[in-house]
Amino acid sequence: MVTVATHFVPKNEFERVCRLNASPAERAGLVANLARINTLYMIKRAGSGHIGSSFSSLDIVSWLHLHELDNERGLYFSSKGHDAPGLYAVLTGLGHLPMEMVHRLRRLGGLPGHPDIGTRGMVANTGSLGMGISKAKGFVYANRSEGRHQLVFVLTGDGELQEGQIWESLGQAANRGYGEIVAIVDHNKLQSDTRVERVSALGDLEAKFASFGWHVQRCDGHHFEALAACIDAAKANAKQPSVIIADTVKGKGVSFMEADAAKGDELYRFHSGAPSDGDYERAHAELKDAANADLERLGAAAVVLEQAPPADKAAALAVQPQSLTKAYADALLEQGRRNANLVVLDGDLMLDCGLIPFKKAFPDRFIECGIAEQDMVSQAGAMALKGLVPVVHSFACFLIPRANEQIYNNATELTKVIYVGFLAGILPAGPGHSHQSMRDIGILANVPNLTLIEPSCVTEVNMALAWAVNQNRKSTYLRVVSLPCETNFKLPEDYAFTPGRGAVLREGRDITVFAYGPVMLDQALAAAERLVAQGVSAKIVNLPWLNQLDLAWLTEVLGDCATIMTLDNHYLAGGQGQMIAAALATSGMANNRQIINLGLNNIPACGRNDEILRHHSLDAASLATSMLTMLKTPGRRTNEGLSL
Amino acid sequence: MVTVATHFVPKNEFERVCRLNASPAERAGLVANLARINTLYMIKRAGSGHIGSSFSSLDIVSWLHLHELDNERGLYFSSKGHDAPGLYAVLTGLGHLPMEMVHRLRRLGGLPGHPDIGTRGMVANTGSLGMGISKAKGFVYANRSEGRHQLVFVLTGDGELQEGQIWESLGQAANRGYGEIVAIVDHNKLQSDTRVERVSALGDLEAKFASFGWHVQRCDGHHFEALAACIDAAKANAKQPSVIIADTVKGKGVSFMEADAAKGDELYRFHSGAPSDGDYERAHAELKDAANADLERLGAAAVVLEQAPPADKAAALAVQPQSLTKAYADALLEQGRRNANLVVLDGDLMLDCGLIPFKKAFPDRFIECGIAEQDMVSQAGAMALKGLVPVVHSFACFLIPRANEQIYNNATELTKVIYVGFLAGILPAGPGHSHQSMRDIGILANVPNLTLIEPSCVTEVNMALAWAVNQNRKSTYLRVVSLPCETNFKLPEDYAFTPGRGAVLREGRDITVFAYGPVMLDQALAAAERLVAQGVSAKIVNLPWLNQLDLAWLTEVLGDCATIMTLDNHYLAGGQGQMIAAALATSGMANNRQIINLGLNNIPACGRNDEILRHHSLDAASLATSMLTMLKTPGRRTNEGLSL
Repeated sequence: MVTVATHFVPKNEFERVCRLNASPAERAGLVANLARINTLYMIKRAGSGHIGSSFSSLDIVSWLHLHELDNERGLYFSSKGHDAPGLYAVLTGLGHLPMEMVHRLRRLGGLPGHPDIGTRGMVANTGSLGMGISKAKGFVYANRSEGRHQLVFVLTGDGELQEGQIWESLGQAANRGYGEIVAIVDHNKLQSDTRVERVSALGDLEAKFASFGWHVQRCDGHHFEALAACIDAAKANAKQPSVIIADTVKGKGVSFMEADAAKGDELYRFHSGAPSDGDYERAHAELKDAANADLERLGAAAVVLEQAPPADKAAALAVQPQSLTKAYADALLEQGRRNANLVVLDGDLMLDCGLIPFKKAFPDRFIECGIAEQDMVSQAGAMALKGLVPVVHSFACFLIPRANEQIYNNATELTKVIYVGFLAGILPAGPGHSHQSMRDIGILANVPNLTLIEPSCVTEVNMALAWAVNQNRKSTYLRVVSLPCETNFKLPEDYAFTPGRGAVLREGRDITVFAYGPVMLDQALAAAERLVAQGVSAKIVNLPWLNQLDLAWLTEVLGDCATIMTLDNHYLAGGQGQMIAAALATSGMANNRQIINLGLNNIPACGRNDEILRHHSLDAASLATSMLTMLKTPGRRTNEGLSL
Repeated sequence: MVTVATHFVPKNEFERVCRLNASPAERAGLVANLARINTLYMIKRAGSGHIGSSFSSLDIVSWLHLHELDNERGLYFSSKGHDAPGLYAVLTGLGHLPMEMVHRLRRLGGLPGHPDIGTRGMVANTGSLGMGISKAKGFVYANRSEGRHQLVFVLTGDGELQEGQIWESLGQAANRGYGEIVAIVDHNKLQSDTRVERVSALGDLEAKFASFGWHVQRCDGHHFEALAACIDAAKANAKQPSVIIADTVKGKGVSFMEADAAKGDELYRFHSGAPSDGDYERAHAELKDAANADLERLGAAAVVLEQAPPADKAAALAVQPQSLTKAYADALLEQGRRNANLVVLDGDLMLDCGLIPFKKAFPDRFIECGIAEQDMVSQAGAMALKGLVPVVHSFACFLIPRANEQIYNNATELTKVIYVGFLAGILPAGPGHSHQSMRDIGILANVPNLTLIEPSCVTEVNMALAWAVNQNRKSTYLRVVSLPCETNFKLPEDYAFTPGRGAVLREGRDITVFAYGPVMLDQALAAAERLVAQGVSAKIVNLPWLNQLDLAWLTEVLGDCATIMTLDNHYLAGGQGQMIAAALATSGMANNRQIINLGLNNIPACGRNDEILRHHSLDAASLATSMLTMLKTPGRRTNEGLSL
């Protein structure tokens, strides 16, 4: 929530700075600093976003846009993508995007949390790490095929260099002499959790790139002349792809963000998330003062800011939200205490996956793998063969598709590995589709010997992990919603956590709704309450098992209810609803019943959580309408899960 | 078919050689050569297998087993895995596996085409490239956690080094000081299609490994003393993981296989597949002569071979098999002629994917990416953004799971990319589960803007590719069976290739069977014929669309037929059958109908094609029984697709 006055730099001030009688470096420095003011504002207003990387990369991004990209002479995109707010700030400042977009970061129809080509100026969808250099190669091939020479600048992170795809992409670029590629490493020494050196040190980065046949340079990424010289040298070296390792400072431009980076503490505080009111005000003041000092030195007037328009009210916050991440952290620690064979693997997300308590308690059983999901999963497989119980962590959107074959390979060994994917489902919707894990159920459901579970609340997190560790002899995937959620329900007192069987959270006779996880169950329950006044009695069932279904239980739960709805926090294809519908059909239980599957059938939109649920008709009001429509107009209907 | 007498070396001859009064190198050389004789025999008998890599690695494998692995002091496995026949030959020769297994390569219950821990002596499931060093790390961690020191030898290919996971796995091994790892690169300079240098040159391999913090040595991989010295040096360097780049010769030990490797022709002829009778006899004679010359030099008697038992008869070959690969090659060439924007990307499988004619006709529009699926797919995405029509090729088992996130990322850009996955489905069953693509439908079905198609015959291959190139505005996945198949059916004269609509191949009134692709359609049609005598009339429907279904067409095709069977050449979860069943349930069409989904619900077995279809109850006889059971005992039944 924004409770302080916020300000942004209007377009005419960027224009004024660009016209100043000053050196290119002085102008670029000013543009970058004004862009930092707007980046800070955008992230504060959005309530989330990546300040640290935006700030470390902004001198590079500003220089490129002022000097290298005009008339499509060069193309620029960021492979890591989470520095998008900084890029947007430059594009709006220089008139390539409408300035009013700065008020719409991470809002529906606004600027997505990670780059999407639907936004003018974005040349590729990024945000999942490691794909950038491959994409640059594709651009170069296409350009050459039409006889065109265009420099392709691609920015990568340094933590990102832990991804295998980066190295997979390098050799061919050298072999084909793709001299148009200029990769710039925003080497700010900090990745999501902490220092790259601590997570998975990169070693001799220059030697690495050189050994893959690339032309390597290194410079201070905040020194414009040095950067320009490297770019010129890269251009001159036309037969070889180039990399410029740009030493930068995370949080550059704001003293306490830089200082925090220099400390090398356990966790860097400004990687993602909005600043507090106090931090916003201090950072804003520093950036403004720095810009004004520069302007004064050039004999120019101080920067004139505009006060931001009031933010529209978000939907009320949850009153008593439950954090499943915290619950998971506690449960993992508990299981770790009981089971000396349990080891934890992390892909640079120990904070977001709740692993810090375990790491502190059992440092020898915590293995930080860095941003290297395939490697992590295959390591875990070997550990399981030796009798350990590896528990593997990352965001669901990365872990499950990226290491998909490795997970299957492990499953063919009939061992026991526990995979835990956080940030599952459509919310939070601010980061956009690269981070909204909406495919993980479908792309794991057919791995043999693997059981998929999404816990709905703190109690069920405990049950699910305990089951995976102590009862399941094969592998388990826990799908965890990261957003703190309201859970206006209690599991039944006599609830036994049994494969394929769920729990009735609310009794009802007219329609039976199957859902899982806190996000959809909460909406379903609220929808049911809305329908009471209209005389509709809806039964809401929590089924945490995503690829298992006990038909005896299903028969009992359904009774003689003739109307069934399933709710997926997932694409419809491959979701739980499709499994239930198919089971109804093949078991004969579909007879004389109407069944509808709700969920997603196109790319999830980016925006504020409440607006995105509504946008996809998955909020309580829309669900109530859908239920009412089913009951009022029974009969044949199109399953929205099929592309018909 | 084996039509010549074949011979193998019995166990007592290996034992005799091991007791000879000779140097360790002389003994190892003899063991390796006897193992080559048996490897050649096994592959000839099995009808397929990888001779070239087995031969290039056999000196290394023999040496390790004779000198480094006793009493579990060391652990050995091959990351590439396709050199398994050579490894089996050593293990049987040295008594670690029963000698009679040499007659059972690639047979049900025998020795799988790629390593599986179900076979004694196999320590990890491999065969999908690039996972080995990650697994070695997992073993080392687990060993250390119980205070154990064990060397972990992992053999990699050289082409395999193109996989990003290799490089993803190296840094952490160095950072954690995993000195127990000794990776050996079987550097035979040839990958699946041709020379590594031509496919995607590796550059300065020693510098690469060194830059990742590894201890690097290089030696002649056929010189035992040199190899032993490198291993000793690796052991002495206990704090750093080691790599030994072993220069080897593909096909080592047989003059014409070595000569073919030395030529560096377009294609190396002995990578995979069984030798012809003539090649078998020449190679066998050479290997025997070489062994005998060595024995004579040592004053020992010549090797005494045993004649192999007669092979049991395989099911009759198809009379007029259709090759969809050849059909695809022609279709691709044709589309390439018509569309100048069409470009072809390959992952080192140009022969197996039928790309050679296109490459010859349009060398500038053919991009060889090497074994680098993620990189290839992301490159294609960028090409599509620039208006090209990229067509991406590999085996389905690698392309679809390994580049799953990259495919999704491309799909979110709403561009048009065509993915073509060969070796789809359960047959050929000889290579084993690492190569049987049984998950690709389920793990692609929920990618938005992507249509999945499996063509059933030559005509439909043409239709499908033409549709993908000329009609579909978004992306397409073509799932292609590589095995030449009998297709005892004709598509209807008036067949229009329309999304979600299939074709009735055989009329019938009692049961309607939905299937796709040549393998299952052929079995279904044969099953229908078998049932005629029993008065059962089965309708067989070809539905090539794997994630689309036209409900109006479905209604029409079903008529009043009350019994429905679906056949998946795929796991049941996420297959076409589940989609159809769910659509029947949600459309109301499941009313008063019984529906069964057949397909796979556990790991596919390895074996001869006919025995594997029968093993999984997917052969014509089993299908006929299933149909009859449905018709005779209608009513509720368990969907075999669910883990209940």
